[in-house]
Amino acid sequence: METSLKKDTESPQVITPTGLINHWQGHRKLTRRVIEAFPEEAFFNYTIGGMRPFSDMVMELLGIAGPGIKEIATGVSSPLNEQVEHGNKKAKILELWDEATDEINTYWIQIKPEQFQKSIKIFGQYEGTVCSSILYFIDNEIHHRGQGYVYLRALGVEPPAFYER
Amino acid sequence: METSLKKDTESPQVITPTGLINHWQGHRKLTRRVIEAFPEEAFFNYTIGGMRPFSDMVMELLGIAGPGIKEIATGVSSPLNEQVEHGNKKAKILELWDEATDEINTYWIQIKPEQFQKSIKIFGQYEGTVCSSILYFIDNEIHHRGQGYVYLRALGVEPPAFYER
Repeated sequence: METSLKKDTESPQVITPTGLINHWQGHRKLTRRVIEAFPEEAFFNYTIGGMRPFSDMVMELLGIAGPGIKEIATGVSSPLNEQVEHGNKKAKILELWDEATDEINTYWIQIKPEQFQKSIKIFGQYEGTVCSSILYFIDNEIHHRGQGYVYLRALGVEPPAFYER
Repeated sequence: METSLKKDTESPQVITPTGLINHWQGHRKLTRRVIEAFPEEAFFNYTIGGMRPFSDMVMELLGIAGPGIKEIATGVSSPLNEQVEHGNKKAKILELWDEATDEINTYWIQIKPEQFQKSIKIFGQYEGTVCSSILYFIDNEIHHRGQGYVYLRALGVEPPAFYER
């Protein structure tokens, strides 16, 4: 028994749960620096091609990240909520960002390794596995942050380096 | 021995090698649709804020994807090359894209499960693990494709849905 448990632990992993959360939190640090790089007013008002201002995209990311991981860890589903009072203050959004960082870390360690390939209907709405849901959270963040980079460039602001996490 | 091998196979995985390649190829299908959505000339010339046209970003993605996976599978390193003759024809780039799809699939199955956490210096230059390198390839694609979405919106073109793969 001890041998087979040891074998289990040593079996090759593409990525471990800890590897995945470190990867995501690295991305989240970069997204935080992109938020910081925005001029205060442009963050809430600047748009290109009829898209949302970057603040609205960030509120979507905040609506997904903490609540999504909490739902995966606890099994308690709640609808997606992208509306949190921020009074058009970047400082408030950065505060919410840091709270989400802690919330994600707190609930992440409650997710069992065998859960990642289990089916889930996240936010009572989106079907997939736990893993595909988490990858969607990360990919969606990278996608919108890439859009934020274009906003910054169009505003004449140098964005933080993509490869620095 | 048989039991412990069986255990190995059954040990929980965040994502399997096959799961990861399917995830990436799903993203690559979406990127292909974004290329298709661009008006021919804008694909090679349109820019915002002094950034590169989307065609140059796609040439970067092509320089990374096939050659990167080939290097991981074979252990033979070569420098990054983003310059392939395309004569400013979207059709040629889509052809290169499809060739890369096959090249990725061909070499992917030669990557051993135990390789993913091994160290590598990809393109003789970037240090990380095999897994972190592959995640970088995927994340970098999502990042630039997100920028392509802004270009499309600014051009008045509706981009393909992000969640369709």
